[in-house]
Amino acid sequence: MEKKTKKTPTLAEAPYAAECSSRLGALEDALYVIGGKWKLKVIIALREGDVKRFNELQRRIPGISAKMLSSELRDLELNGFVSRTVHDQVPVVVEYELTEYSASLSLVLHELVEWGKMHREKIREMRS
Amino acid sequence: MEKKTKKTPTLAEAPYAAECSSRLGALEDALYVIGGKWKLKVIIALREGDVKRFNELQRRIPGISAKMLSSELRDLELNGFVSRTVHDQVPVVVEYELTEYSASLSLVLHELVEWGKMHREKIREMRS
Repeated sequence: MEKKTKKTPTLAEAPYAAECSSRLGALEDALYVIGGKWKLKVIIALREGDVKRFNELQRRIPGISAKMLSSELRDLELNGFVSRTVHDQVPVVVEYELTEYSASLSLVLHELVEWGKMHREKIREMRS
Repeated sequence: MEKKTKKTPTLAEAPYAAECSSRLGALEDALYVIGGKWKLKVIIALREGDVKRFNELQRRIPGISAKMLSSELRDLELNGFVSRTVHDQVPVVVEYELTEYSASLSLVLHELVEWGKMHREKIREMRS
């Protein structure tokens, strides 16, 4: 078992520690907003372009419950990634769309998806 | 409240749905392995180079408990991102290091950290 100890970083450690802590802070900010199991998936489903309504979205994202999708859409709206439009007709139509700001996530998403593909391929090779 | 309905995708929807589902699958793979609150943070702390021991790592990652760090290191080891070396001396020294494969995450990490910085800056501007 490792003991818990608190120690002040030495002078040699200090610059690494500062750089590390700045990167950890930025990563924490990113994961706070887009982390978790569903948020990026909802964004990918909305990015495919032709999906705007709640039920369509739910069908596109296997395994997400209506309650979870509804809560994720609310979070994404609060953080400026998704806009929600209510069309005043009978029955009422609610549409969700990505905002301009959500495009700032393109590179992150691209790299995550590419890495996921590469990793899946690697696992497949290891098994065969 | 949205009703739950199941509908087969129309012919026009089908290609989008297939592409969407392939991206969602890749993202799922990525998040399965590196998702959660701590894994990428442990990798960043190890990447800073001079940190190898458990206690040093714990000091670098604010808020992580010994139990959580221990469990995350085990997961990262199982998935091939971290190697664990036990040096046969008294007292026993255990060192953790990133594997070569972990370097495949560089771009993902870089984009996440850059996005986090940009997002923090944006929030700061909005508040002032």
